[in-house]
Amino acid sequence: MGDDLRPVSEIGEQGLLKLLAPRLTKPAPEEVWSGDDAALIGIPTGRAAITTDLIVEDVDFTLDTFAPEDIGWKAMAVNVSDIAAMGATPLYALATISLHPDVPIALFEGVADGLFEAAEAFGVYVIGGDISRARELTVGATLIGIPGDRSVTRSGARPGDAIFVTGHLGGAAGGLIALEQQIDAPGLIERQRRPRPRVEEGRHAAMNGATAMIDLSDGLARDLGHVTAASAVGCEIDVGALPIDDELAVLGADPVELAITGGEDYELLFTIPDPTVVGGIDAMQIGVITDGEARIGDKPLSEWKGHAWDHLRTR
Amino acid sequence: MGDDLRPVSEIGEQGLLKLLAPRLTKPAPEEVWSGDDAALIGIPTGRAAITTDLIVEDVDFTLDTFAPEDIGWKAMAVNVSDIAAMGATPLYALATISLHPDVPIALFEGVADGLFEAAEAFGVYVIGGDISRARELTVGATLIGIPGDRSVTRSGARPGDAIFVTGHLGGAAGGLIALEQQIDAPGLIERQRRPRPRVEEGRHAAMNGATAMIDLSDGLARDLGHVTAASAVGCEIDVGALPIDDELAVLGADPVELAITGGEDYELLFTIPDPTVVGGIDAMQIGVITDGEARIGDKPLSEWKGHAWDHLRTR
Repeated sequence: MGDDLRPVSEIGEQGLLKLLAPRLTKPAPEEVWSGDDAALIGIPTGRAAITTDLIVEDVDFTLDTFAPEDIGWKAMAVNVSDIAAMGATPLYALATISLHPDVPIALFEGVADGLFEAAEAFGVYVIGGDISRARELTVGATLIGIPGDRSVTRSGARPGDAIFVTGHLGGAAGGLIALEQQIDAPGLIERQRRPRPRVEEGRHAAMNGATAMIDLSDGLARDLGHVTAASAVGCEIDVGALPIDDELAVLGADPVELAITGGEDYELLFTIPDPTVVGGIDAMQIGVITDGEARIGDKPLSEWKGHAWDHLRTR
Repeated sequence: MGDDLRPVSEIGEQGLLKLLAPRLTKPAPEEVWSGDDAALIGIPTGRAAITTDLIVEDVDFTLDTFAPEDIGWKAMAVNVSDIAAMGATPLYALATISLHPDVPIALFEGVADGLFEAAEAFGVYVIGGDISRARELTVGATLIGIPGDRSVTRSGARPGDAIFVTGHLGGAAGGLIALEQQIDAPGLIERQRRPRPRVEEGRHAAMNGATAMIDLSDGLARDLGHVTAASAVGCEIDVGALPIDDELAVLGADPVELAITGGEDYELLFTIPDPTVVGGIDAMQIGVITDGEARIGDKPLSEWKGHAWDHLRTR
């Protein structure tokens, strides 16, 4: 984060773009990145995976609990995660920042730093974007990825497939509680602020025959529900096998409940006929796809999903 | 626009997505559009033009002066225009809508109607997007286009090139005045609410040797300045040759000033060595590229640019 506390209105959009210019990598020959009406990019494989998502002040983050760099990082990371969930490799990003004219230039620079930091961490070139005026801070990205030989959607799960998740669950939801209640749980807070999408794991799963895949943004119950609905299958999940984030123990909340209903972990869930091919990545089997009801433990998915979050639904 | 006046919070994001589902065209085989983590698309040429832009309530439109359908149309059209300005053909779009939970479902449907209407008008498939909660209404799109054999950037103008603009200038800025002052000028208001990007003209110019091109979103003075700066050239513009919107005469404002500094016409400006090849499209020569100063009439561009708009700069 810079130290320029003047409002962004002092230098305007053109001034902010000038601040970014030295940060942008030079494009390949025949390509055009920022600074024109549109970017021109090569998609040598002739196929692309593309997604867009944005995060909004006081909905997805607050300026009290997120540093500007965290906001930029998260806006980039959640989109990288969607590309990873197709088994594709993220390559290009357009970034959008909407902000109030009174916001300090340093805040804008911090958000940009976070966007670039995450882009670099996941091998993504920022090729353009847009800066708009708005009342609230909104940061978004469009990500373009290159699919591998196999892409994986949500709809290919078949009865008998093993269900895997990467990493650990519940940490990001725990981090939100820790931030709200000012509990000292740095690992959980890091999970909430700085999700680390599973690009390698997504590629590995796709190459090794995964039949369905999704990233866990809305929580295990809801996202598993997307897979079982799209695939027209059921499932059994062994609650005892869930890789629950250890640090959740410091919170008053039920770790199992958080692992099942908490969102924003940005881990991957995938289904695969032969579980023995899953090796060398941080992933564990948590259940199987069935031709019956979709269940987690002894409850139907729909009962768990009731706890989960629809960010527009308030009643 | 529908007639469902319940707030969107009654049905949530999942409910809104269900409303859209019947509207989405079916993808080609091997492609995945909405309903997965990312869309999978074919880019058979191996090259793509990509851009993203969004419009924000009370900055780019107000709910008093724009119907929801106009808002959706404009969000799509301004992005189509950026693709047109590269000489490319728009093909795919991702749309984003951020809205307050108390907004009526009918307003959401109206915005979506406008997005789809513009997409259809310009041959674009809506392949996905994102719905977010926010305080203010923001509607955006990411557009992916297919470049032709020649793409045109802002940086290729050379001394001696003729400068052309499509259509007429000043209408959209006039429409804004008409809306603010409640002046009866339906043509101008339509220009403000429903820009019609020049996809055919952009392709024609690119195929016939245009050396530089830009869409007129910030106004002639500012956008011409982008071209002369990127190309390191000057220009002379014949103010008498400017195709000024006739209907501007009904306003109190100076039509020439509006044509030169008013934004949002979404016409194209292009430079081309041989003006005789420009035929069969609605475009007129307004000047020439020079190796001297950049001027419009008897004033340097910088004096005109001073009037133009930086939507973040307030002083």
